[in-house]
Amino acid sequence: MELFNIHVLLTLGYSIVLVHSSPVLQEDITKYKDAANRIIHHLLDGPAQNQSYNRLATFTDKFGSRIAGSEYLEHAIDYMLDTLSKEGLDNVHGENVMVPQWVRGKESATLLSPRNHKMAMLGLGSSIATPPAGITADVLVVSTFKELKQRAAEAKGKIIVYNEKFVSYGETVAYRQQGATEAAKVGAVASLIRSVTPFSINSPHTGWQDYTPGVKKIPTACITVEDAEMLHRMQKRGEKLTIRLKMNAKNNPYVKSRNTVAEITGSVYPEQVVIVSGHLDSWDVGQGAMDDGGGAFISWQVLSVIKQLNLRPKRTVRLVMWTGEEEGGFGGQAYFNAHKKNISNFNLVMESDMGVFTPYGINFKGNTAATTIMQQILNLLGSINSTTLEKVTAVGTDIGSWAKAGVPGVSLLNRNEKYFYFHHSNGDTMTVMDPKQMNLCAAVWTVVAYVVADLDSMLPRDIQPPYNEAEIQQDKRFKNSDEISRTVDEILKFVIGT
Amino acid sequence: MELFNIHVLLTLGYSIVLVHSSPVLQEDITKYKDAANRIIHHLLDGPAQNQSYNRLATFTDKFGSRIAGSEYLEHAIDYMLDTLSKEGLDNVHGENVMVPQWVRGKESATLLSPRNHKMAMLGLGSSIATPPAGITADVLVVSTFKELKQRAAEAKGKIIVYNEKFVSYGETVAYRQQGATEAAKVGAVASLIRSVTPFSINSPHTGWQDYTPGVKKIPTACITVEDAEMLHRMQKRGEKLTIRLKMNAKNNPYVKSRNTVAEITGSVYPEQVVIVSGHLDSWDVGQGAMDDGGGAFISWQVLSVIKQLNLRPKRTVRLVMWTGEEEGGFGGQAYFNAHKKNISNFNLVMESDMGVFTPYGINFKGNTAATTIMQQILNLLGSINSTTLEKVTAVGTDIGSWAKAGVPGVSLLNRNEKYFYFHHSNGDTMTVMDPKQMNLCAAVWTVVAYVVADLDSMLPRDIQPPYNEAEIQQDKRFKNSDEISRTVDEILKFVIGT
Repeated sequence: MELFNIHVLLTLGYSIVLVHSSPVLQEDITKYKDAANRIIHHLLDGPAQNQSYNRLATFTDKFGSRIAGSEYLEHAIDYMLDTLSKEGLDNVHGENVMVPQWVRGKESATLLSPRNHKMAMLGLGSSIATPPAGITADVLVVSTFKELKQRAAEAKGKIIVYNEKFVSYGETVAYRQQGATEAAKVGAVASLIRSVTPFSINSPHTGWQDYTPGVKKIPTACITVEDAEMLHRMQKRGEKLTIRLKMNAKNNPYVKSRNTVAEITGSVYPEQVVIVSGHLDSWDVGQGAMDDGGGAFISWQVLSVIKQLNLRPKRTVRLVMWTGEEEGGFGGQAYFNAHKKNISNFNLVMESDMGVFTPYGINFKGNTAATTIMQQILNLLGSINSTTLEKVTAVGTDIGSWAKAGVPGVSLLNRNEKYFYFHHSNGDTMTVMDPKQMNLCAAVWTVVAYVVADLDSMLPRDIQPPYNEAEIQQDKRFKNSDEISRTVDEILKFVIGT
Repeated sequence: MELFNIHVLLTLGYSIVLVHSSPVLQEDITKYKDAANRIIHHLLDGPAQNQSYNRLATFTDKFGSRIAGSEYLEHAIDYMLDTLSKEGLDNVHGENVMVPQWVRGKESATLLSPRNHKMAMLGLGSSIATPPAGITADVLVVSTFKELKQRAAEAKGKIIVYNEKFVSYGETVAYRQQGATEAAKVGAVASLIRSVTPFSINSPHTGWQDYTPGVKKIPTACITVEDAEMLHRMQKRGEKLTIRLKMNAKNNPYVKSRNTVAEITGSVYPEQVVIVSGHLDSWDVGQGAMDDGGGAFISWQVLSVIKQLNLRPKRTVRLVMWTGEEEGGFGGQAYFNAHKKNISNFNLVMESDMGVFTPYGINFKGNTAATTIMQQILNLLGSINSTTLEKVTAVGTDIGSWAKAGVPGVSLLNRNEKYFYFHHSNGDTMTVMDPKQMNLCAAVWTVVAYVVADLDSMLPRDIQPPYNEAEIQQDKRFKNSDEISRTVDEILKFVIGT
């Protein structure tokens, strides 16, 4: 039904929106073959070769890590706004977003018994501090939340160590998000999780965690896979474990940050937009090269290539480099809130936040008609083996609200099976990145965004039921919700084949 | 010629030794099929299943890292002597060895310009300290020694950073061993190497380094692959780099340590021995589970299995857990010096110090006749796919002098392509180890040692020319010599297939 040119009255809870669904299936997408090849050539062995990699190296080497609320991030945003303006892109500006300011401070976790061992650790985002002298307590190691409940009587006054197995990011990240709350419920004084990663060289992996309202807040941090396993072995031998945890973390009032926006304004329908995006903020460890410098910079590359090739499409292609993603998608949610009244003009939302390794194609959330069109566009990428379209039920954090409201959404499908080796750790640096892989990802990203923006009609989309405002507000913590977890697992299942 | 039962007068420079070469090729090695199968079954699904892994976990969890000269190592040796005695093994004792005592102390390396960045680092073994306030100097990054020589005029007063590519351990480790000396020759005040590893999660990898007599000693440390690459990119952009290096390392006088020895005394020729070995000492980071707890503990397992199965062989099987290996094979060299007068009784020397991952078979250094016999023994391991014999020109550090003098030598051939991911880093822990893989390695090790020890005759070996005492003394630094480097590369070439 969505294949025909009908105007549908779509009630969005607070406004009435017109969605244009056109006979785009009749449009000959193969006519873009030449443009697609020019884009690919320009990126793989033309003037834009390695440009996104080199830009990202310059950027991450200059600014290092860029946590929300830090001066580093704001300097990085200033630099981007200046650089995008100098490039001559359209409508370059920042859009204000209030973001959390969590500051790690000095921290340590030391095993005192059965032997002295200073553990590699990282406090989890939003954790409170310990008292200045730290918390020294005996330890209970558990493998699961279920085991914690079964052993609740032993937990009081203890530091809980979760030695949870890495099953998948989506499933296992629950221990990072809810570990402190579950430990507090049974009377623990602090909690430590095994870092959420399938592979470790004694590397702690941080991330945001959520205190549940009404449950006592206790300090929480991650330790390494290696140490979590060792503590568990020691406990199984009947040894008494004692740990001293010191954390000086601070949760300051929210501060102003900015989403970074630039465009190639559309030649025919400038008000209609295709969003290409990634987040500019990062964790405060590593350099945020993979998460998500890569995604942000291939999105920037889309605009640069379109400009360099004078390929001005009918619709606007808009770059958004999100802020405050790592704390739960603050930039993406603020942007949705500010622009949802124009949702009918949002043609396609694209976000790359799961690596820019060798691409296969895209993850797509959209209806059958849109899927058919997207597959035809991907067929233009046969020469770089990126024609795979994997349907998903949800896309990335910062575009999640749009996709949930019915706007077709895209994530980049790429060979990211080692993504969680580096994720949220000091290992997230340019060494993970590869210029050739970034060229390929930028080619996929540019061809998809450009062709969708230049089609005669907007992508078809299903009529959405009136959606619930409260439900979308909840999406502020989208990254931490089941939905995004499922998406990540769907992507990985495809890539790893497990 | 060596196939027949002849007694050959072998001059060893200082003594006359009788080497027994017997018609062992006529011996029916297939008669050991039952014994081999019993050993394999006992380790894979019998009473010794996972024993070496569990013993190693208990040991490393209890003692942690065990650098030569530390109380941790001496406590670990006491524990081993006690445990081996309680097990009822024969002739359990320590043999004194003087070893270096290098103490790391507090250390840091901070990039001050173009931006402030605290780098992960580890001082290299034997490095001197910086002055208490550290050394703050501008930086010259080079890729090779050749480039350093070409840019010698720029090096004076600088901190040299080597961003050498990882080609192979054998080739690339030269930058760790000689980096400080080469930097000092051109007037540098300190040197930093990129860690010698093919893969990194911001992990520094330490190791011994050698000052060349007559060249000024300067402080030296390793940084991560990630930081070395970043510094190089910054320099290429024309940025001025400044680093502050602080190291409080101490080179104390040599102290007494011990090789740990135990036996199953031979039933017919107790004076003739097969050595099974690995080193008990480790670096002062990680827990020395892989390097070389695994090798030492599968060697211990050989004696345990022989005892548990009442398989007393004709010759003595002797376990030696070396000390002071990481500083250059001090334990191995002291043992050779103390026992070389009995070289005619040393039938075979075996050392496992390149991982105990899934085994393929063995590396072997010996003559053609011995090789034929060893291959027949390996054929007993068909059920566990470990029948490969790879000929090498040199074997491990601690048995190198014996092999050089003509005693047949064995290293364990195993799927160790990730060995250098963890080597000499905080990632060398039990998490790298796998109980099933250790069972298999112990099976290879036990079958080979037991059968060789039980054959009617000693393994044939070539007549050695009178060897040069000075040359063998030089072997004290064997680990750092070209010869061991070549061996490592030979092993890896086979395993990785490059």
